Amino acid sequence: MLRLYYAAGTCALASHIALAETGADYETVRLDFATGDQRKPDYLKLNPKGRVPLLVTDRGALSETPAILAFLAQSFPAAKLAPLDDAFAFGRVQAFNSYLCATVHVAHAHRMRGYRWADDPAAIAAMQRTVPRSVGECFDLIEREMLQGPWVMGDAYTICDPYLFTLSGWLAGDGVDPAQFPKVQDHRRRMAQRPAVEKVLAEEGLPQS
Amino acid sequence: MLRLYYAAGTCALASHIALAETGADYETVRLDFATGDQRKPDYLKLNPKGRVPLLVTDRGALSETPAILAFLAQSFPAAKLAPLDDAFAFGRVQAFNSYLCATVHVAHAHRMRGYRWADDPAAIAAMQRTVPRSVGECFDLIEREMLQGPWVMGDAYTICDPYLFTLSGWLAGDGVDPAQFPKVQDHRRRMAQRPAVEKVLAEEGLPQS
Repeated sequence: MLRLYYAAGTCALASHIALAETGADYETVRLDFATGDQRKPDYLKLNPKGRVPLLVTDRGALSETPAILAFLAQSFPAAKLAPLDDAFAFGRVQAFNSYLCATVHVAHAHRMRGYRWADDPAAIAAMQRTVPRSVGECFDLIEREMLQGPWVMGDAYTICDPYLFTLSGWLAGDGVDPAQFPKVQDHRRRMAQRPAVEKVLAEEGLPQS
Repeated sequence: MLRLYYAAGTCALASHIALAETGADYETVRLDFATGDQRKPDYLKLNPKGRVPLLVTDRGALSETPAILAFLAQSFPAAKLAPLDDAFAFGRVQAFNSYLCATVHVAHAHRMRGYRWADDPAAIAAMQRTVPRSVGECFDLIEREMLQGPWVMGDAYTICDPYLFTLSGWLAGDGVDPAQFPKVQDHRRRMAQRPAVEKVLAEEGLPQS
């Protein structure tokens, strides 16, 4: 059975929702970052990166959200979570998810994880102050150029949607007014109505948004 | 015909090498970052992100290295650049490339692109000083846990290999001694012997490493 390691409030929510959308049997293991579960030896054996999400399969473990999302879409084609027979359309899905992973999530991470990229407390504070600008620029681009509507890729729901939903849930905490991005807000409301999303938010103990 | 927009010395090298490995006909357009080509209106129409690489196909444009690499592997299956019929093995390829994109490249980018994440010059300088540590930690993990050898995924050459070759070429400039990572160095030597790599390095005007 597939087993997802997650921590509440992290990007693992995207993989969790996608997993629920597949209809597959799965189980979850919740890590508590406050007590450093992700740095304990048993977990580091599974994932030497010490991060979430991690999806453990009968073949071994997979990390990295874009990789897990594509794996789930390919492994459960009946769930129609990506255009699997069209390399270009699949490439567009992957380009969106790669942008979320390497640009949007990274901009956000400078609020709480600045120590990854600077040792000086003043520099870490300067990074935190810049997050509203950098995250806001990312969502400007998403609103203007990338989110086709009603779903990210247009009429078809894909693995882009739970990932955007996860990251757009961080806007207010990052000091960015979500009301600037009406298409993103509409997307959040649409996502919140999906049974898989309701189920996963309840399981993670997150507010139904 | 496929058209790749690149700038010399950037991560676009990975897509350029993979494109040469496919055996497909292609053309390239070289952007000069020193004169801001990537911010000119004609280019922003193609890629509103103002970055490289960009692969223009007869269906439209694709950005983001991991997406372009997977697209090339799927579009030219005869080149055998990824395990296309095995979702788990493909997921491992994608997890490696996502780590390079969202963690390794991001650590490196704090040397030259710190302005993305802080406005304060002192903070940007502090980020630069941290790059040897953060990039070094990434390559420790790659050397110890991820690079199977002789190629990244073991016996089969994949789209992971040109991407690792591209990023490992930045080590010395980032203040990290490449000699700490003998498997990575062996990988670089092996890559440099491939005809596609020789051809692309010559085309980009880069030293044969």
